[in-house]
Amino acid sequence: MNFLDELKKVCGKNLLTKKEDLYVYAYDTSLNPEKIILPLCVVFPKNSKEISEIVKIANKYNLTLIPRAQGTNHCGATRPSENCIVMHFSKMNKIIEINKENLTAIVEPNVVIGELNKELDKLNLFFPPDPSNLAVSTVGGAVALNAGGPRTFKYGNTKDYVINLEVVLADGTIIETAKNIAKNATGYNLTNLFVGSEGTLGIISKITLKLIPKPQASFVTLAYFDKLETCLNCVNNIISSGFMPSTIDLMDNQTLKTIENFNPCNLLTDMEAGLLIELDGFEKCIQEEMMILKEILEKSGSKKYIQAKTKEENENIWRARRSAFSAATQLKPNVITEDIVVPRNKIIDFVNKIRELSKKYDIQVLIMGHVGDGNIHPHFLLDLENKREKMRHEKLRNELYAYAISINGVLSGEHGIGNTKKKFLPDAIDKNALDLMKKIKNLLDEKNILNTGKTI
Amino acid sequence: MNFLDELKKVCGKNLLTKKEDLYVYAYDTSLNPEKIILPLCVVFPKNSKEISEIVKIANKYNLTLIPRAQGTNHCGATRPSENCIVMHFSKMNKIIEINKENLTAIVEPNVVIGELNKELDKLNLFFPPDPSNLAVSTVGGAVALNAGGPRTFKYGNTKDYVINLEVVLADGTIIETAKNIAKNATGYNLTNLFVGSEGTLGIISKITLKLIPKPQASFVTLAYFDKLETCLNCVNNIISSGFMPSTIDLMDNQTLKTIENFNPCNLLTDMEAGLLIELDGFEKCIQEEMMILKEILEKSGSKKYIQAKTKEENENIWRARRSAFSAATQLKPNVITEDIVVPRNKIIDFVNKIRELSKKYDIQVLIMGHVGDGNIHPHFLLDLENKREKMRHEKLRNELYAYAISINGVLSGEHGIGNTKKKFLPDAIDKNALDLMKKIKNLLDEKNILNTGKTI
Repeated sequence: MNFLDELKKVCGKNLLTKKEDLYVYAYDTSLNPEKIILPLCVVFPKNSKEISEIVKIANKYNLTLIPRAQGTNHCGATRPSENCIVMHFSKMNKIIEINKENLTAIVEPNVVIGELNKELDKLNLFFPPDPSNLAVSTVGGAVALNAGGPRTFKYGNTKDYVINLEVVLADGTIIETAKNIAKNATGYNLTNLFVGSEGTLGIISKITLKLIPKPQASFVTLAYFDKLETCLNCVNNIISSGFMPSTIDLMDNQTLKTIENFNPCNLLTDMEAGLLIELDGFEKCIQEEMMILKEILEKSGSKKYIQAKTKEENENIWRARRSAFSAATQLKPNVITEDIVVPRNKIIDFVNKIRELSKKYDIQVLIMGHVGDGNIHPHFLLDLENKREKMRHEKLRNELYAYAISINGVLSGEHGIGNTKKKFLPDAIDKNALDLMKKIKNLLDEKNILNTGKTI
Repeated sequence: MNFLDELKKVCGKNLLTKKEDLYVYAYDTSLNPEKIILPLCVVFPKNSKEISEIVKIANKYNLTLIPRAQGTNHCGATRPSENCIVMHFSKMNKIIEINKENLTAIVEPNVVIGELNKELDKLNLFFPPDPSNLAVSTVGGAVALNAGGPRTFKYGNTKDYVINLEVVLADGTIIETAKNIAKNATGYNLTNLFVGSEGTLGIISKITLKLIPKPQASFVTLAYFDKLETCLNCVNNIISSGFMPSTIDLMDNQTLKTIENFNPCNLLTDMEAGLLIELDGFEKCIQEEMMILKEILEKSGSKKYIQAKTKEENENIWRARRSAFSAATQLKPNVITEDIVVPRNKIIDFVNKIRELSKKYDIQVLIMGHVGDGNIHPHFLLDLENKREKMRHEKLRNELYAYAISINGVLSGEHGIGNTKKKFLPDAIDKNALDLMKKIKNLLDEKNILNTGKTI
């Protein structure tokens, strides 16, 4: 028997081998790779037992394994490697249990976060991580990359909501990392070792999430500033006053203009910065908090602000913010979104650096991001078919990363490392820590068959 | 040279070797061990470089190392092992930095949490974990054991506030696990591997904490119920309504009586259960929330409730709750506090089991705990000098743990495993997960010199 015969025995018809099918799985949402690598085949396991069998076959034939769900990541975390089997989770998309009393949900990796939210909504429950593309992104992907979204300032990243994982290890062993209990100090924290490891330490086959009660309401304030410094000072004033907004997001002037051009919604395009602040909780309480916030905005020098009073006004502001990426794609064929986090007191320096580099390399940029966390997402606009522009962007990126590292920032807050940022890791992480990460990778995946070529 | 000479070269006079001194470090807050083991010596390093040197000496002479701060743990996590050097952190007790803008604090391991809180208070900042004995417990200890406290339902355990660690590994290498950035998806999560590992994977020498803005105010409600079931249903009603109380704590009738006896404060001792609910945030908002809570309490069948309106009333209720342990010690020479977490929908079964076992083995028990988390702390009262009582307690404990495991509970939510619960781990953790934990221990500490004999 060859490996395909063996895989067929495990997967039956849930196996693709035709070249035209394989092409589909050569990509993810990251920019097209220099070189297209086709997988040898694509398998669609139905449960952890099948995953385990497939892993054993990969071992036997020295093949690599690329686990993936919808592939909406920006960092090439799901690109095929040489001699690989792509393992797609589309047959593992069940919500196994939502337990209202225990505030837990057990799901398979391919459950779409938006779909989960719909079910949770009915029970007044809430899973805060929100990797913007809710209609596509999966829980498995969010766990693999430790995804975040606009609400991390108050609610944290995915790692803060994963309490137990079923994982298939590189030798086919199936482990349960913990128990379905949120508060647990029993043994080492294996769960968080797998969260964010991008499928390089084990294949996640089942996830237990911690949920929280759904806040009764949430309301957005959009405040404008004629100086970026004033805007960032205002962020500090809000936090110092004891607020824990669920979102504190920034849009710079270019972002405001681009959104307004694409999708007119009365944004003030003559302002230097817009700050989106979402408060959530009991409706009556938010009304009180909005009054306190209003005072802070005025004292902090906001030139104008809109406080949503209805669901509709709320939605309008969010729609504007969420359309930023789509709006950006109207300007140039390619939009490259960075995901750097810097200490909050360095945001202004970092934004100035982005602008300086944008000028120096003549590449347009929209600056936005979750400023509450210091997580800045500059969107660089370019045409990758234009070789010179591409090269200029490469240089810009190198300088930008070097600068971020020099001010004690990190290269990813929520998008992950994948294979696109991998080469920068030695500069971004303590050398001895990186050595230890490599040792852990080697301990868990001696033959380097799991998502080969990603992150560490 | 022998090891003492070498240690002297590193530590100078910060080295104890006299027998009468060594006795002091043979204990921690856990119950007295069967057999007293004296350390060979006690060292007091001043920085990570000295720790690294000491670790190298331990390696060279095949000695084990017991890192400890104040030793307030209940699980024997800091008891000496054979041929050990006790490493005490009392010379490493500096708050290195509190950064208000970045919401971070950098501290050495021996910083007392209460002292840190005092400094944070001045800046309107907040570090939520609260291992009750704030005046003694240290940040290092909280990190080693992943400590929690009454506020974990809303705010999580220590692991949720540690964003970067300096750790000295078993070969003396010093690593920085991450960066001083709360939102980080760059490489594997080494930080959380060390948090809660009880010093068995590395010696923590510096800690960066994530802070949050201090809530403007907090107010407590104490609600009474004539049935435990009614009380626990009320907990579900509170959570379902969208509340995220900072505390939801239970005291059973025996606890209420014992506290009132010891420290009269007008607790209603004829009630079956008291529920302590703390809400925090903006003062005006809490007033609104207290009204909503009041309605829920009435609908849920609370027979009586007190809602604190002043700081003093607040303090009175907290003082009662906090005196539970001291009150218990008046009844019997020894109080053994358990730290089991069960799924919230199994609390009532678990409480009934505790009572059944208490009767069966004739050992008095006070039941209290953080019911919001399912974290139950039964306090068993006994005289360990009474051999038969001790044996009965042993049997009770075995049955209690077996029952907790059978309903998918965990053996520790915040106190850790240490050496007192170590033997129960194989029943409490997935076998393959425990194997992996052992492999990780072996990878990081091949010679098993770090806090030998604890947890894994």
